Amino acid sequence: MSLHVYLSGEIHTDWRDEIERGAKAAGLDIVFTAPVTDHDASDAAGDHLGRESDAFWRDHKSAKVNAIRTKTLIEQSDLVVVRFGDKYKQWNAAFDAGYCAALGKPYVTLHGEEIVHPLKEVDAAAMAWATTTEQVVEILRYVIRG
Amino acid sequence: MSLHVYLSGEIHTDWRDEIERGAKAAGLDIVFTAPVTDHDASDAAGDHLGRESDAFWRDHKSAKVNAIRTKTLIEQSDLVVVRFGDKYKQWNAAFDAGYCAALGKPYVTLHGEEIVHPLKEVDAAAMAWATTTEQVVEILRYVIRG
Amino acid sequence: MSLHVYLSGEIHTDWRDEIERGAKAAGLDIVFTAPVTDHDASDAAGDHLGRESDAFWRDHKSAKVNAIRTKTLIEQSDLVVVRFGDKYKQWNAAFDAGYCAALGKPYVTLHGEEIVHPLKEVDAAAMAWATTTEQVVEILRYVIRG
Amino acid sequence: MSLHVYLSGEIHTDWRDEIERGAKAAGLDIVFTAPVTDHDASDAAGDHLGRESDAFWRDHKSAKVNAIRTKTLIEQSDLVVVRFGDKYKQWNAAFDAGYCAALGKPYVTLHGEEIVHPLKEVDAAAMAWATTTEQVVEILRYVIRG
Amino acid sequence: MSLHVYLSGEIHTDWRDEIERGAKAAGLDIVFTAPVTDHDASDAAGDHLGRESDAFWRDHKSAKVNAIRTKTLIEQSDLVVVRFGDKYKQWNAAFDAGYCAALGKPYVTLHGEEIVHPLKEVDAAAMAWATTTEQVVEILRYVIRG
Amino acid sequence: MSLHVYLSGEIHTDWRDEIERGAKAAGLDIVFTAPVTDHDASDAAGDHLGRESDAFWRDHKSAKVNAIRTKTLIEQSDLVVVRFGDKYKQWNAAFDAGYCAALGKPYVTLHGEEIVHPLKEVDAAAMAWATTTEQVVEILRYVIRG
Amino acid sequence: MSLHVYLSGEIHTDWRDEIERGAKAAGLDIVFTAPVTDHDASDAAGDHLGRESDAFWRDHKSAKVNAIRTKTLIEQSDLVVVRFGDKYKQWNAAFDAGYCAALGKPYVTLHGEEIVHPLKEVDAAAMAWATTTEQVVEILRYVIRG
Amino acid sequence: MSLHVYLSGEIHTDWRDEIERGAKAAGLDIVFTAPVTDHDASDAAGDHLGRESDAFWRDHKSAKVNAIRTKTLIEQSDLVVVRFGDKYKQWNAAFDAGYCAALGKPYVTLHGEEIVHPLKEVDAAAMAWATTTEQVVEILRYVIRG
Repeated sequence: MSLHVYLSGEIHTDWRDEIERGAKAAGLDIVFTAPVTDHDASDAAGDHLGRESDAFWRDHKSAKVNAIRTKTLIEQSDLVVVRFGDKYKQWNAAFDAGYCAALGKPYVTLHGEEIVHPLKEVDAAAMAWATTTEQVVEILRYVIRG
Repeated sequence: MSLHVYLSGEIHTDWRDEIERGAKAAGLDIVFTAPVTDHDASDAAGDHLGRESDAFWRDHKSAKVNAIRTKTLIEQSDLVVVRFGDKYKQWNAAFDAGYCAALGKPYVTLHGEEIVHPLKEVDAAAMAWATTTEQVVEILRYVIRG
Repeated sequence: MSLHVYLSGEIHTDWRDEIERGAKAAGLDIVFTAPVTDHDASDAAGDHLGRESDAFWRDHKSAKVNAIRTKTLIEQSDLVVVRFGDKYKQWNAAFDAGYCAALGKPYVTLHGEEIVHPLKEVDAAAMAWATTTEQVVEILRYVIRG
Repeated sequence: MSLHVYLSGEIHTDWRDEIERGAKAAGLDIVFTAPVTDHDASDAAGDHLGRESDAFWRDHKSAKVNAIRTKTLIEQSDLVVVRFGDKYKQWNAAFDAGYCAALGKPYVTLHGEEIVHPLKEVDAAAMAWATTTEQVVEILRYVIRG
Repeated sequence: MSLHVYLSGEIHTDWRDEIERGAKAAGLDIVFTAPVTDHDASDAAGDHLGRESDAFWRDHKSAKVNAIRTKTLIEQSDLVVVRFGDKYKQWNAAFDAGYCAALGKPYVTLHGEEIVHPLKEVDAAAMAWATTTEQVVEILRYVIRG
Repeated sequence: MSLHVYLSGEIHTDWRDEIERGAKAAGLDIVFTAPVTDHDASDAAGDHLGRESDAFWRDHKSAKVNAIRTKTLIEQSDLVVVRFGDKYKQWNAAFDAGYCAALGKPYVTLHGEEIVHPLKEVDAAAMAWATTTEQVVEILRYVIRG
Repeated sequence: MSLHVYLSGEIHTDWRDEIERGAKAAGLDIVFTAPVTDHDASDAAGDHLGRESDAFWRDHKSAKVNAIRTKTLIEQSDLVVVRFGDKYKQWNAAFDAGYCAALGKPYVTLHGEEIVHPLKEVDAAAMAWATTTEQVVEILRYVIRG
Repeated sequence: MSLHVYLSGEIHTDWRDEIERGAKAAGLDIVFTAPVTDHDASDAAGDHLGRESDAFWRDHKSAKVNAIRTKTLIEQSDLVVVRFGDKYKQWNAAFDAGYCAALGKPYVTLHGEEIVHPLKEVDAAAMAWATTTEQVVEILRYVIRG
């Protein structure tokens, strides 16, 4: 069994690398995908379509160009991992979780104990809650190998 | 034309009342629905199913009982208004927006200018962004009456 | 808010009556539906289409005639309650739960503690687990009234 | 023509091996998949996410981790074989059958004559009922080769 | 419980009237619908859009105008009865049955024993096979009343 | 039989009134809906959300507010009539036709002979092509009454 | 561009071979599939599951085993060719056409002029009507190569 | 990440070649597809099925044969680019955009500033608006590489 796994959410720590390294070390057959994680590049994704004087429209254009990528990758994945850090709003991560829930696409969350309460609706529709990347790798190993 | 409108998100101000009053004043034929907005009642929604010693499971049970209501009402609505205040995480609001996006259910957002940037993915999939409840009422009036 | 609630599963106790009485006493606006709960009538549902010498085909015909009813009612409902008693196989109840899960139709289970382990997959996809009909009524009251 | 076949249900006999050996002997191009069939491993699937004092939640976490695997494999399969033994509740097998029925995914059942009556709803939505693994292999051979 | 029942197929006998009278006599709450059963009117349904010299296109236009009606009514119905007489090709009846099967819409067939073999694929996906209109009425009575 | 009919497309002639009057004269039970047909109001639909200096974004906001209405009404309708006049681009009408085609929603076109060739893809997926509003009324009459 | 093409319908002439040979001669990249076309084998598809004394149930079992194959192949195909000969009922061919229509799966029909009228509903939902296998090959060539 | 991109719309300039060359120069892993862009061949796509005296039916047959190709390719693509030139009606391009919108298939538009207003509904549902083929290539590069 092989899996396509999309890694959604926080972009300020190297949690994606940790999971990918762990999966590789375990010899798991997984294709990992992710949004563009370069913050500045992501914010500028629509700039080449014409500069905007209004910040809202600059964001709007960039967010839509990014959505071409994220929507496609989420729909092609078998499982989504949604990571919430302890800073920032990260509404896009919660948005992705809701998107998965409506599609019936399984997802697991990855976050610390201190934000359990505000994430209760997101966790309620998840297949698992992990606090460390090692736990996520173990979930992936179990799903593939038993 | 009549509409079913679900009012998702922030529960600490009276924005729902403002919209409902505005729609009534305009004589619009709208059925408004909402999640349970009593914070304590919402957190305790699963308590009667047995007390939990672990905070995660208490939240989990309550969030799922609440989800019976929110999922049903969102799917029955023609339009969803998603409100983000200037405080709190409000990940459930972003979750609802993602849920709507995946269903192809139209939604509009209601939030201030200061959080435009972190909400760019949520706004990108919305049909409109409003900053005041008057604007939301005007959208509703236009959609129904032209 | 009103609800259509389908009551699936065990037919040897009066749990359906208890829930309906409780909901009525609470003044809840609910349309309850159920499979045909007269065991003999249900087993004989296809007999008028011609007697079968083979027990398998008699069951087959009756089960399909019953399925016209159950499939229609489940799909029309907003919420399903699936009851497992402490006797019998009750595979049809588990079948209904799986059917709901695939449709994304919310369901709650109603069963005793002693069968928690064999029902873990069924409970995993449920929105709540109740052990008494009073708890189910309380869930219904909360979903409708908050 | 090749097939993806998911083998759902009973885990205490070697029926899966018999079908896989039979298909191999017949030279059929089939990818077989299955849930994790090591009972203890399956029950412990969520343990690494944190030990639970409450049996219900331990089961809950493990069942959801297992569901990531089973849901994915069922949805990727062309045909599901659902096996019911003569012991145990096996509600998960009936749940899988209901899940397939709602998705329009074809499934065949494999069980003895003595449980025909309690399985009538499950058999009513199946494409075939087999009593031996040889019969299942013959169905697979016919579907692929004619 | 009320039902919307679409009566598809043969138009040369009064089987629709028999079923409707039987259901009325039994006091069943059913809305019956049907295609246009006036053969000449049905063949001429597109004539007002411009006469065609080519018989194929005359048929084509009329068939499509009729399809607006049949498609809408089939999709709005809870159950479809598909009648095959002992004469004519009646490919439209088999087409309707296939349409229902793909939608997961339950249907029952109504036909004599002498055409069991050529109808085996149509019957295989049906919820029941009846040979008389009385049997159809009894199915309707059972589905609604138990 | 009653119908919900959405009248899409050209807004510079009174074809909608003609159809509605014709249907009323024929006593047909039809609820007609339409986009906002006041050209200036439609172009200004988003203005109350804040004036835009860039024409593209003004159009963008207004088009999305209008889409809340049109998307909802198209999805609620049983049949769509798409009118193309002999002037203007009318890409929104063709867009609505494509939208209907993908949903499997039946639509008929209403346009003159001189634009048959450029509309061939739009007509290819339509259930009928009418050149006069009388013909549309006759289609509606036939669909409802036979 | 490559295609998966399912060849449905009549089994008494070698039209399938003609199409496959024509496509090969034209160098088209097509995977052709078909139902089991050995009439006796098809009728006996369920016999190994236990002999039936009743002809209806023998047909029923065989038709369902065949349906595992046909349903899977139709859903995996990009295009279906449905052939009607000048003899026999061929209700299964019309059933397949209706099945395709409901799925939005494109199909073309292949039949003589003398049965245009009884096939008008089937042709109305088809993408083309061909009278010779050469025409079908030409459609395939055009779709793939332009 | 690789993409399937369908290039819909205008056929009188070499915009498709420009995008394909640009993507190749950038080393992007993209499979491009398109409708048949030879105008005369496209108009004649149905001619081999029998000549028509009526221009409408000639167009009708050809448009449907073309639709087999376009519908299949659009549904198989991850992203659609819809090009509008400054001449011609191009209703098929707008039709494709509406088709994508209803499927939830992301598309971007490619057109000049002078037709922003009549395309506002088409642009409103698009993920981006580009004015040059270089911009489209840059979108593709960003979506694949970040």
